[in-house]
Amino acid sequence: MPKPEKHVFICQQARPAGHPRGSCSERGCAEVGEAFWFQMQERNLFDRFAITNTGCFGPCGLGPNILVYPEGVMYTGVSKEDVPIIIEEHLLGGQPVERLMAPADVWS
Amino acid sequence: MPKPEKHVFICQQARPAGHPRGSCSERGCAEVGEAFWFQMQERNLFDRFAITNTGCFGPCGLGPNILVYPEGVMYTGVSKEDVPIIIEEHLLGGQPVERLMAPADVWS
Repeated sequence: MPKPEKHVFICQQARPAGHPRGSCSERGCAEVGEAFWFQMQERNLFDRFAITNTGCFGPCGLGPNILVYPEGVMYTGVSKEDVPIIIEEHLLGGQPVERLMAPADVWS
Repeated sequence: MPKPEKHVFICQQARPAGHPRGSCSERGCAEVGEAFWFQMQERNLFDRFAITNTGCFGPCGLGPNILVYPEGVMYTGVSKEDVPIIIEEHLLGGQPVERLMAPADVWS
């Protein structure tokens, strides 16, 4: 199997209610992850791109967070509505979605 | 925060006993993950490298599996004894550890 052209890592970290860090789970990462898995399957893109669920990347208060390698682009505050845009513009089009990129003090 | 020079993704997938796919958990990924987190902390390397726990990468029967980006090197069958070697040779030295790399039919 060739390595994927791009590999999307989707934080699915949960923490107990009231935890001071919060979590991507609390901020809706489950539906973002589901949208990615569903749309990649629907568009038959798993020959080109991989998706992996992960634990914490760090900036929990800005989540849901996603990381795309090999370029190392982090997206923060991703919603399910952003998923087709990331797939089309970044994965298929090769242009990271600027407005969703993590602030430079978080990841640059 | 600058993005890490290398990002180590460590599968921590578990499955119920007797599941036909097996899992990296069944094959010892917990102690591999612990060794990574401990040694990276001990050597004070978190300014340069990141570690993230993940779900499944696919080749469960060859685990424990690790993936290093941005180069996209997959290691299979990693033991805790391999961890300092990966840290020294690959992360610090820039030379992937050939003998641990996934077979080409799995990832190439």
